[in-house]
Amino acid sequence: MSGIGVIATIRVLPGKEAEFEGVFAELAPAVRANEPGNSYYKLFRTADAGVYKVLECYDDEAAIAAHRASDHFRTLGAKLGPCLAGAPEIESMPAV
Amino acid sequence: MSGIGVIATIRVLPGKEAEFEGVFAELAPAVRANEPGNSYYKLFRTADAGVYKVLECYDDEAAIAAHRASDHFRTLGAKLGPCLAGAPEIESMPAV
Repeated sequence: MSGIGVIATIRVLPGKEAEFEGVFAELAPAVRANEPGNSYYKLFRTADAGVYKVLECYDDEAAIAAHRASDHFRTLGAKLGPCLAGAPEIESMPAV
Repeated sequence: MSGIGVIATIRVLPGKEAEFEGVFAELAPAVRANEPGNSYYKLFRTADAGVYKVLECYDDEAAIAAHRASDHFRTLGAKLGPCLAGAPEIESMPAV
């Protein structure tokens, strides 16, 4: 099976959780609606306070590049930035 | 958004990777075809030799229980067992 999975671990500043979740609620449907090379994009709250994980899947590296270059990701990503405690940690994994 | 995400980290014994992947190639479509409460179930190979992650999503705890109790999971899980270097590590996370 083809594809590339991504687990993005995101640490949010204390008190910024609601703002982060609100922006992400705009971002996730924009990704699914506008990126034909994306097949999964969903946000989860981990057991650690302020730590989230996004589970993602793309058809190929070109689809990941298209995601990062998209207007919605750049516009909404700029709104997410002030909520973050640091750069997201990205794990990429080929599908089996 | 509702749902429960799962990241299952699975360590496979050296030399058992092909057998593991072969059984999983039966398991994944069986999960998607037979579990109405499952919305995602996909296997990925991590950068660490012999370490895989399954990204999963279920509607609720009842759907996770149904997954674990399913005939396909129990039958194919029994075939996976001899391939594993230890018990899978399971991280469950509520969807945001």
